[in-house]
Amino acid sequence: MAPHGDKSDAADETMVAKAEKRPISTILIVMAMQSEALPVVNKLNLSEDLQSVFPKGVPWVRYRGFYKDLNINLVCPGKDSSLGVDCVGTVPASLVTYASIQALQPDLIINAGTAGGFKAKGACIGDVYVASDVAFCDRRIPIPVFDLYGLGLRQALSTPNLQKELNLKVGKLSTGDSLHMSTQDEASMVANDAVVKDMEAAAVAYVADLLKVPSVFLKVVIDIKDGEETTAEESSQSFAALERAVTQVTDFINGKCLSDL
Amino acid sequence: MAPHGDKSDAADETMVAKAEKRPISTILIVMAMQSEALPVVNKLNLSEDLQSVFPKGVPWVRYRGFYKDLNINLVCPGKDSSLGVDCVGTVPASLVTYASIQALQPDLIINAGTAGGFKAKGACIGDVYVASDVAFCDRRIPIPVFDLYGLGLRQALSTPNLQKELNLKVGKLSTGDSLHMSTQDEASMVANDAVVKDMEAAAVAYVADLLKVPSVFLKVVIDIKDGEETTAEESSQSFAALERAVTQVTDFINGKCLSDL
Repeated sequence: MAPHGDKSDAADETMVAKAEKRPISTILIVMAMQSEALPVVNKLNLSEDLQSVFPKGVPWVRYRGFYKDLNINLVCPGKDSSLGVDCVGTVPASLVTYASIQALQPDLIINAGTAGGFKAKGACIGDVYVASDVAFCDRRIPIPVFDLYGLGLRQALSTPNLQKELNLKVGKLSTGDSLHMSTQDEASMVANDAVVKDMEAAAVAYVADLLKVPSVFLKVVIDIKDGEETTAEESSQSFAALERAVTQVTDFINGKCLSDL
Repeated sequence: MAPHGDKSDAADETMVAKAEKRPISTILIVMAMQSEALPVVNKLNLSEDLQSVFPKGVPWVRYRGFYKDLNINLVCPGKDSSLGVDCVGTVPASLVTYASIQALQPDLIINAGTAGGFKAKGACIGDVYVASDVAFCDRRIPIPVFDLYGLGLRQALSTPNLQKELNLKVGKLSTGDSLHMSTQDEASMVANDAVVKDMEAAAVAYVADLLKVPSVFLKVVIDIKDGEETTAEESSQSFAALERAVTQVTDFINGKCLSDL
């Protein structure tokens, strides 16, 4: 994946090479839940953009600000206008990511949020994962080639230095629009070798790949899919861990090029 | 649902009232499969727009032309650039619908395609359905209010005259990203009282609702979910029925206002 361009393929490749050697400037952070986003907004001292870059009628929210040498844009799909709940899931995440890339031309996307983890794969509540790759777990199209399309496997930007420096766990991420897995979703996640499961990442990756923006997926384990229910205290600790992780990653990125990550 | 505007709510309502009394001018036809779209493209004498209104890199295709008094735009999410198959499903459908509304400001969206039908609900291969309402069948979020958000039930534009004049069947439509239903998807479709099942409509409806564009969902039954497999001849007949249905609906719309439908 490479930065968004508007030239021929050869020119694109030159731009990619240049971008990899240029300090990262504009970051797009995509977070599905506003309650997860607000601690990050406060920590990075961002403010809500009241002159929206988005069309009238959409509930999408952008928080913006400069943090160190970075131009930070944190976007959320916002609240459903009829129901008042966060617009979680793949469709709103893909739309707000698309519109944000078009409006803001970011150098890098960070999709951050809480996720479910698989104990059998070593995940514990509060663990911070950076995804090596992402795929859908609930798009079963058993026709040759369409099956691969449905899976939608995409690699995240390679970030070996970031992972080592911040001591992050690395694993495969599966995305599905249901909070509770069907037997078939579960089989798909086992086939994906997934360690964590969220509701947006593979859709964000799809859009980022279409528009050639490198992406990082940062997920904090808030519940265990194959274990006990999460306590309120554990939930609260996961939210705090998410804010710390996004801040640490942002600090690490500051002043660096894509190839330094 | 009402036409796209850029004014206050009161002004919006006035615009809606006016739009309902103004002949429909610009139509956006959204079709997921290019093989289904091409007979319609040929019949309506549309031509591919080579100076794309879409960003570089996206596979989305637009066919355009004037047919009688209508400015017709038929868009497809196109082929996956790596895999070469049609970009079916909710995420690409929502993106191409969003970008097309932004670029073209249509008066009306027609989402057309083939779909699965339920024999137990009276569907037969080749039947042409116009959806009364659409919902997702694969977004299970068993938390109060989020459950309704996941379902995403939306009413289509009311079209009693169109339905009567063209002798169309009317029924509820469920959308899911899997071709083959899980037990849970099936239970959700029974709960939705669905007669037909496709892979895009509820996502198109979500975007159309966000941006206040009235929408019609026209689906031809190509296979029976609770019955025998479709023969090659039946598939071919369903494609022909889809082309005829889109043409007949377009003919019916020509010269009419939204409130005449």
